[in-house]
Amino acid sequence: MKISELGEFKFIDRISGMFQDLLLPGYTGIGDDCAIVPYSSEEDYVVTTDMLIEDIHFIKNRIPPEQLGYKSLAVNLSDIAAMGGRPVGSYLSIGIPAETEVEYLDAVMKGYHDLSQKYQVQLLGGDTTKSEKHLVINIAVIGTCKKGHARLRSMAWSNDMVCVTGYLGDSAGGLEVMLHQLPETKDHMQLIRSHHLPEPHINEGIWLAQHPEVHAMMDVSDGISSDLVHILKASKKSAVLDLDMLPVSDTLKNVATKHGWNVDKLASSGGEDYVLLFTLKAGNFEKTNKGFRATFGRDLFPVGEINDEAGAEINWIKNGQQIFSNQHGFDHFRT
Amino acid sequence: MKISELGEFKFIDRISGMFQDLLLPGYTGIGDDCAIVPYSSEEDYVVTTDMLIEDIHFIKNRIPPEQLGYKSLAVNLSDIAAMGGRPVGSYLSIGIPAETEVEYLDAVMKGYHDLSQKYQVQLLGGDTTKSEKHLVINIAVIGTCKKGHARLRSMAWSNDMVCVTGYLGDSAGGLEVMLHQLPETKDHMQLIRSHHLPEPHINEGIWLAQHPEVHAMMDVSDGISSDLVHILKASKKSAVLDLDMLPVSDTLKNVATKHGWNVDKLASSGGEDYVLLFTLKAGNFEKTNKGFRATFGRDLFPVGEINDEAGAEINWIKNGQQIFSNQHGFDHFRT
Repeated sequence: MKISELGEFKFIDRISGMFQDLLLPGYTGIGDDCAIVPYSSEEDYVVTTDMLIEDIHFIKNRIPPEQLGYKSLAVNLSDIAAMGGRPVGSYLSIGIPAETEVEYLDAVMKGYHDLSQKYQVQLLGGDTTKSEKHLVINIAVIGTCKKGHARLRSMAWSNDMVCVTGYLGDSAGGLEVMLHQLPETKDHMQLIRSHHLPEPHINEGIWLAQHPEVHAMMDVSDGISSDLVHILKASKKSAVLDLDMLPVSDTLKNVATKHGWNVDKLASSGGEDYVLLFTLKAGNFEKTNKGFRATFGRDLFPVGEINDEAGAEINWIKNGQQIFSNQHGFDHFRT
Repeated sequence: MKISELGEFKFIDRISGMFQDLLLPGYTGIGDDCAIVPYSSEEDYVVTTDMLIEDIHFIKNRIPPEQLGYKSLAVNLSDIAAMGGRPVGSYLSIGIPAETEVEYLDAVMKGYHDLSQKYQVQLLGGDTTKSEKHLVINIAVIGTCKKGHARLRSMAWSNDMVCVTGYLGDSAGGLEVMLHQLPETKDHMQLIRSHHLPEPHINEGIWLAQHPEVHAMMDVSDGISSDLVHILKASKKSAVLDLDMLPVSDTLKNVATKHGWNVDKLASSGGEDYVLLFTLKAGNFEKTNKGFRATFGRDLFPVGEINDEAGAEINWIKNGQQIFSNQHGFDHFRT
């Protein structure tokens, strides 16, 4: 059987099962945005790693090198944010075709440095090697998290409200703009910017993890319709999500209207927004949102509710009517 | 300028300089086998990462998948060993071409699991993604090390003896056997085994790090003539190495004699032996070796001496005569 038939998540399940025998108490392994590694009596380390491969995750002449460096780190910082952690250091492995210009790499590293500086993340090590054809970037990030504060995907309760910390679909919109080579209008450029320069919600994640009414948390990397399923599976729950409640920016609305794009699809299945997706104890939205707004100057967005149904299903609602189930997102080997 | 003109190590120097501003006290960043990250009052974490790319580091039909999985982890464990650390957990990022058979990947993971089990290393996380053409494996390993025990490349003293913990050149010999497609004799297979299944010297590293007379340490991955230069640069020293003292296995001697190979070259410049290379305070060899032999049932090998000369040069001796300087080893972009 080929990996493309098995799929990414079943392959991960296989590996996870195979290595279960080696897992020690105090450690959390495969299955969350980060692994948890014991640190002191007050803190744990959270560790994540992500690989980006040319022509799969990025096309070299479509993303400026500074933005590639920035984004490569940002997607990892977003995983730290999803646990409620604070990033401390990164490790960069880079596989480089021999013909690559040093100036190109310098620019990649400048973007990487700029974001590192913004969140005071040290570059602690890595590996530099030749690649036959494609540029390959693997980053691992280590962060700290107050003991017991890390939010796992398995922590959702029934009746929790499902919330996100920012707009959905802008990044997918930016990808559409690039794929269709649309002109460089202000709106188009802003969507591309969302796709290339996502802001990791580090401070938002730390803030949310300080609030006990925040239960499960992860980041939106593959699209909410795919990502939420991971929470539902880990928590043995299902959910109802309302398409009309998915937060969509005015920019995306404008551009989508102009080009006849399906905004619901972009917001529900588009990936790479890197906002946080979390579940909030029922009855807490107003209070939590007030504190969030006071700290960050913007609102949280409620988008649905967790329930006790089996099967880890998402029931989608539009105009008060159920419309379809399990609109799946991204599987690296199946799309 | 192309990366192939600049070279691997100058590129690393550039990055290292660029990120110096972000490094915090208590952390050791780029430039050693592992980064050091604070843990408790008694221990530090040591972290390393290595990337292996198909057709650069391995050829898919030349190494059985189980051995590929084993070796990918082994080279990382060797970096932990080089610091005197004990591995605790690994993170595996894997980029997989869509046509890859799941059975192949299962075998890779079996080899990875076998070595994980041997040293009780947990698989804590990772990333699975599609690759356009080449299989890409990136591993990060975290280990623990008693506070102050980690051995850095900068710790060599003048008059230190340079030592290694095992044979040199077997792995390079195995590569020659494969490149020339020599018949599957017992000797040939043993050299290939050294190339595919290197034993990380974890316990040796922990033992050596407990001895204060052991100063600088690293592992032999690119060949001693290249690796020792890193110690010399970091310690601002030079060295005299004696080609006749490089430990060479009887197997390699036999095979080399038969095929007219230059054993000195294989032992001095061949990479991937993954033995430990360390410097030992003058006058301590007999005592330290006695303890090493009592623990591991085999001897350490002295191969030369550190001196105060500038320039990080290796002066090679053969038959008591200086023969050449700075026989360099492996640079990923220059060979």
